[in-house]
Amino acid sequence: MQLSMRGREMTRLSGIRSIMEDIATADAAGPRTTANLSPGNPCHIPEVVATWEQLVRETLDEQFCETSTRYGPSRGTPALVEAVVAYFNAAYGWSIRPENVLVGPGSQLLSFIATTLFTGQDEYGDIRRLVLPRTPDYAGYQGLSLDHAGIVGVEPKVSLEGERFFRYRLDIDAVQRLDGIGMMLLSNPSNPSGSTIDTTELTELIAVAKRHDAPLVIDHAYGEPFPRIAPSDIKPVLHSHVINLFTLSKAGLPAERIAFAIGPAHLIDPMVSFVANSVLHAPQLLQATVARALAKGDIDTLTAQHITPCYTAKRALAERLLAESLPAAVNWRLHSGERGMFCWLLVDHHWFDDLEFYGTLKRNGVFIVPGRHFFTPPLTTPFLRAHATRCFRLSLSPNEDELADGIRRLSAILGGLVPDSSGRG
Amino acid sequence: MQLSMRGREMTRLSGIRSIMEDIATADAAGPRTTANLSPGNPCHIPEVVATWEQLVRETLDEQFCETSTRYGPSRGTPALVEAVVAYFNAAYGWSIRPENVLVGPGSQLLSFIATTLFTGQDEYGDIRRLVLPRTPDYAGYQGLSLDHAGIVGVEPKVSLEGERFFRYRLDIDAVQRLDGIGMMLLSNPSNPSGSTIDTTELTELIAVAKRHDAPLVIDHAYGEPFPRIAPSDIKPVLHSHVINLFTLSKAGLPAERIAFAIGPAHLIDPMVSFVANSVLHAPQLLQATVARALAKGDIDTLTAQHITPCYTAKRALAERLLAESLPAAVNWRLHSGERGMFCWLLVDHHWFDDLEFYGTLKRNGVFIVPGRHFFTPPLTTPFLRAHATRCFRLSLSPNEDELADGIRRLSAILGGLVPDSSGRG
Repeated sequence: MQLSMRGREMTRLSGIRSIMEDIATADAAGPRTTANLSPGNPCHIPEVVATWEQLVRETLDEQFCETSTRYGPSRGTPALVEAVVAYFNAAYGWSIRPENVLVGPGSQLLSFIATTLFTGQDEYGDIRRLVLPRTPDYAGYQGLSLDHAGIVGVEPKVSLEGERFFRYRLDIDAVQRLDGIGMMLLSNPSNPSGSTIDTTELTELIAVAKRHDAPLVIDHAYGEPFPRIAPSDIKPVLHSHVINLFTLSKAGLPAERIAFAIGPAHLIDPMVSFVANSVLHAPQLLQATVARALAKGDIDTLTAQHITPCYTAKRALAERLLAESLPAAVNWRLHSGERGMFCWLLVDHHWFDDLEFYGTLKRNGVFIVPGRHFFTPPLTTPFLRAHATRCFRLSLSPNEDELADGIRRLSAILGGLVPDSSGRG
Repeated sequence: MQLSMRGREMTRLSGIRSIMEDIATADAAGPRTTANLSPGNPCHIPEVVATWEQLVRETLDEQFCETSTRYGPSRGTPALVEAVVAYFNAAYGWSIRPENVLVGPGSQLLSFIATTLFTGQDEYGDIRRLVLPRTPDYAGYQGLSLDHAGIVGVEPKVSLEGERFFRYRLDIDAVQRLDGIGMMLLSNPSNPSGSTIDTTELTELIAVAKRHDAPLVIDHAYGEPFPRIAPSDIKPVLHSHVINLFTLSKAGLPAERIAFAIGPAHLIDPMVSFVANSVLHAPQLLQATVARALAKGDIDTLTAQHITPCYTAKRALAERLLAESLPAAVNWRLHSGERGMFCWLLVDHHWFDDLEFYGTLKRNGVFIVPGRHFFTPPLTTPFLRAHATRCFRLSLSPNEDELADGIRRLSAILGGLVPDSSGRG
């Protein structure tokens, strides 16, 4: 069967597919032998699960016929759009209106839609590209472009902190040197590292966006105003060139695919059209459920009382376990951050290769995600060859026992990879 | 803001957006003054609503944590994929396996994905197009292509039947003359007319698909094996060049966006990749609900005992009302069919224009869908200018009172449009 050129782009095995196949593989292998530190699933927090279940039940009891048995607006149900407007106006002192909001079936699709609209061939035949201004970033972004070589990832600046920590910073000079920018996209705080831009860097990125008349899309999946899994140095911002993405996935509903975009109407409108033409609208029973959570304040209660504390504790546990378990002779570093959904590790040795490490762990029933999937291929620069392949991501979503077991097994396996002093290996 | 060329294509106001904005307009106008005969919503059938509500409740009670709080496979949840496999193997004597199935958030997105994969620029720079081999067809198909002029609609052959009926047939000769086919797509039985191809025509279309190495996508939204809203002369077929689309929308869950594709693995696989890269997966609470409906047989009970009888009765009522109400002096014809979700009418006079009629009705609180939205623009051929603009679609989903009221008001307004015998108008 003949795929079009864009069809070939969309069927390459991207990092995210690799992750999802790993999850399936790990699940099939069974929990007894496996320590799965790869998933992007949020932590299982009983109070969070119970609250969402109760909210779905209330919606089902009171609104099933109205929500599920009739098509609705592509922008989102009026109840959810109004709840988003009220929530964000109250939280940030904004004056947004329904025209500034679009609900969609997940922020991945909203990202795909924005990429398809704002990047690609322009009227002069030039290709405007998707720029990820601060890599490493979410592996799923690598699957968003319909164009061959349509994605440009900008290498970060790396600051070492003490013996065991490091931090990425935005290389704004490198971003400013780019041409052909159709859109910029970053998760903030970032998956995988928890890195966050500050207000100065945000101002600089917006200036680049304005100069190229290209939107800056900021994916707040882990940050403000919920679920605050990782701390952010910026708040969502209203600007003529900024689209903000928010999702309920990390607040406990990853499988129900409810997300929304907030931005100026001239950016949101074409996205509404695309939703109408492609997917009609997001599923409505869960739209109504999320409207309840926003209107009644449950989302803030869950965030403050359960989600943020859970990840703070998990991160502290993981840092302690890593410090105790990882081989002292290895030059390993953790991306710094006070909490977050992941630990992002650098093993800064020429003998370390993320894919080889991944394969060795997998054969031993331990799953992580190789670092290179969070950078944009091909890894041709000296920095990428020496850095991206020396990183890997650990998820903090497993329970404490699995996390501890996984970190200990991983540490032992890493210790076995250290070349002996004779220089072999 | 600069949209890419494909972005411009996806933001043109297509027929489907016009329909959805009409629904919103009609809803806002309130039920008292409005007779809304435009929607594609399924009929409100209390037993159908109650069954789905009960099935969602069972899923919520037993499986909420498992379904909603963890990401799942892009192909669909194992439970639903297995239920689809078992259901279709039992229904048609097939031997399909999970690799032949893909669940997605609505058949519109599955159609968009197939169109994006199989049409567009090929490796030689030529554009392979989406062909609608038998127009009129679903208005939403007009919004599927990212390419300028990427859709070709083939005009039907028209057979007159008696005084008041007509029927479309596939013009296979015209289809066979086309080049640059990337994919063919048709709803069967069709929205809007209820037209169905027969097994001979199916064989001929498959031969064209093979010759172009392009998939034939058959959208069974109204037909076999459920919800059987309209009768079909073909069953779903397994073939190296055929993708079948099925949806739960017309079986009562339009707002929850659950659909699935069945076809050979070499066609389904790239669609799974696209889902993984774009939307991750369909929402899971409703996937689990649909799995129950398939496994327990509720879907067949609803279809046989409630859905098919409802539309049979509605169609009979509408035919009687149309015959009683429409002006005898007008040469109007109804596309024939024993039941269906719509009445598709032709007013075969030079003075009739679907858009003008639509506007006049709208000012009087009656909503229909103009015929031209179901054909591929521009309407440049003599047939399309004289036929597409003389058709309109009535939905049978309103309740009996609204349907009767709407048909009577519409008939009176049409009567007022008839030029007097002096030849004016």
